[in-house]
Amino acid sequence: MKIVLDGMGGDHAPAEIVKGAVMAAGMIKHDIYIVGKKDAIEAELQKNKFKGKNIKIVDAAEVITMDDSPVKAIRRKTESSMVVGLNMVRDGHGDIFISGGNTGALVVGSRMILGRIEGIDRPVLASIYPCLGGEPSLLVDAGASSEAKAQNLLEYGLMGSIYMEKVWGRENPRVGLVNLGVEESKGTSVTKDAYQKLKTASINFIGNVEAREVPVGACEVIVCDGFVGNVILKLTEGLAWNILKLIKNKLMRNIKTKMAALMLKSDLSSLKQDFDYEEYGGAPILGVNGPVIKIHGSSGANAVKNAIIKGIPYSEENVVEIIRQSMLDLEEIIEKDEEE
Amino acid sequence: MKIVLDGMGGDHAPAEIVKGAVMAAGMIKHDIYIVGKKDAIEAELQKNKFKGKNIKIVDAAEVITMDDSPVKAIRRKTESSMVVGLNMVRDGHGDIFISGGNTGALVVGSRMILGRIEGIDRPVLASIYPCLGGEPSLLVDAGASSEAKAQNLLEYGLMGSIYMEKVWGRENPRVGLVNLGVEESKGTSVTKDAYQKLKTASINFIGNVEAREVPVGACEVIVCDGFVGNVILKLTEGLAWNILKLIKNKLMRNIKTKMAALMLKSDLSSLKQDFDYEEYGGAPILGVNGPVIKIHGSSGANAVKNAIIKGIPYSEENVVEIIRQSMLDLEEIIEKDEEE
Repeated sequence: MKIVLDGMGGDHAPAEIVKGAVMAAGMIKHDIYIVGKKDAIEAELQKNKFKGKNIKIVDAAEVITMDDSPVKAIRRKTESSMVVGLNMVRDGHGDIFISGGNTGALVVGSRMILGRIEGIDRPVLASIYPCLGGEPSLLVDAGASSEAKAQNLLEYGLMGSIYMEKVWGRENPRVGLVNLGVEESKGTSVTKDAYQKLKTASINFIGNVEAREVPVGACEVIVCDGFVGNVILKLTEGLAWNILKLIKNKLMRNIKTKMAALMLKSDLSSLKQDFDYEEYGGAPILGVNGPVIKIHGSSGANAVKNAIIKGIPYSEENVVEIIRQSMLDLEEIIEKDEEE
Repeated sequence: MKIVLDGMGGDHAPAEIVKGAVMAAGMIKHDIYIVGKKDAIEAELQKNKFKGKNIKIVDAAEVITMDDSPVKAIRRKTESSMVVGLNMVRDGHGDIFISGGNTGALVVGSRMILGRIEGIDRPVLASIYPCLGGEPSLLVDAGASSEAKAQNLLEYGLMGSIYMEKVWGRENPRVGLVNLGVEESKGTSVTKDAYQKLKTASINFIGNVEAREVPVGACEVIVCDGFVGNVILKLTEGLAWNILKLIKNKLMRNIKTKMAALMLKSDLSSLKQDFDYEEYGGAPILGVNGPVIKIHGSSGANAVKNAIIKGIPYSEENVVEIIRQSMLDLEEIIEKDEEE
């Protein structure tokens, strides 16, 4: 397969992007196409003393910056690494696109260039959510749209379930709807309606989950609108890092506690690693006609490498095709219901 | 002043309620009126060997349970401790009402019996939010209504600011709007509109805050709708307790780490205490014609005692009257703006 990498997207591009690609290239047999300014990428490949054959450069003269307006940038910067890369996937010259660039532009570009999967009202950004002392979950929507209709929440649940099963190997993943309480009658008119829709879908819907249960893995697919998703992701990040920082400060206070710190060092860093988004291989965009992965703008080489490795099953397991099929099945069920 | 306490509200009523009242009675000169089943409360007072004069019993034959439907319960159970207690505040026989009973019923009852302050569209439940390594903030709405209009968010900011200034002694408290990003243009149509309204209000509005910054005290009044507020409170609780539990488990693994645990014991329990809602004196209902405080249903005597102590300035500092005045001022400003 052909992995297409945005060489110019992110705070540390192209240096860390190329470095990550070189790390991944040594571990896989697939081809990696880095899209971006040829000279700059070539220079980075030389710095990394890359001697392999499975990294190729695709020249792209323009760059979409973090300040660019998404729609305008996708329309006007047709020679940008992001647009060129998405075009490659659309035209069959690439099997997945990975970018650390402007999130809004990547979501909009995926929708405009690859197109929505038939039956999907709204493509969405999903994020791996680290669970305490267990396997991570998937949170959908991670912030692509601040509001959602019940139909969107249903789509998030369906697509998230397929992704977790195919890419993370979860059998019959538990799908939960974030809500004020576990009772069916709780929440807004949108969550109540979404509950009914999710209940009848052919997924393992476990009902409403309270935010308290989210960090301990109450469900493997966490469904919510983008506003709530953003709050969950950022609050988790802020709280986890700051609690660990506070403990570290307390540990550094005197000789006695410093000794204790030494004994706990590896435990605390493994806990810290649980909350390290670099480990999880980025956030998939779900609902468009081709696999796309967003990595954090501040991604280092390690995050790039993980995204490439984790991207392989997203393409090879035909996630996009399975989502398309499940939407057709859903339509059939709805039509049947209406006929009856 | 006369403090009115719901003797029958909460999982451990009346035993823990009476015990908390006895603890508080020894510390203050004010009168505490415990409303509820006379015999049961008298028995508890005897168990606690109460010899003072500042606890009085007000008999009330009925109890509103956690399963009661709020509106129905308030309308029909007119002899319940909650309705009798709220009536006392309305009629001037009490200066504040404190209850650990059915939250929905208490919010609805406050609105129906005490009435909304003129100009307030929607009374709200506010909750003290513990900040890491610093002073706590106030979160409004803590879950009274799952949706909010821009006008409601403005009211939350105004009332929260007054409460933090008068009851917690904060000078010119920083008010922040929970949003997807700090830019003025971020968020939903509601948050964008609320931003403009809050900006022109005579409070110290610092703009949008991201959820990441909430646990470190980015603002002293955290404004959001009840759905987001519920997510913030419950996620914080779930995450903080589970991180501490995980660390504790790691510490208990072997002799070496157990020694470290011993050295850190007081530090970890002070951290745990930061997240203990019992310490903060309950959640005020803001926007009704009288001070009302909700304490957690599982509250023990200590929480009851803290709510009584913390309730004193809510009444004595005339918070309700100041909110009323600020709504009148706001109306004048709006009228002036419209004339111009």
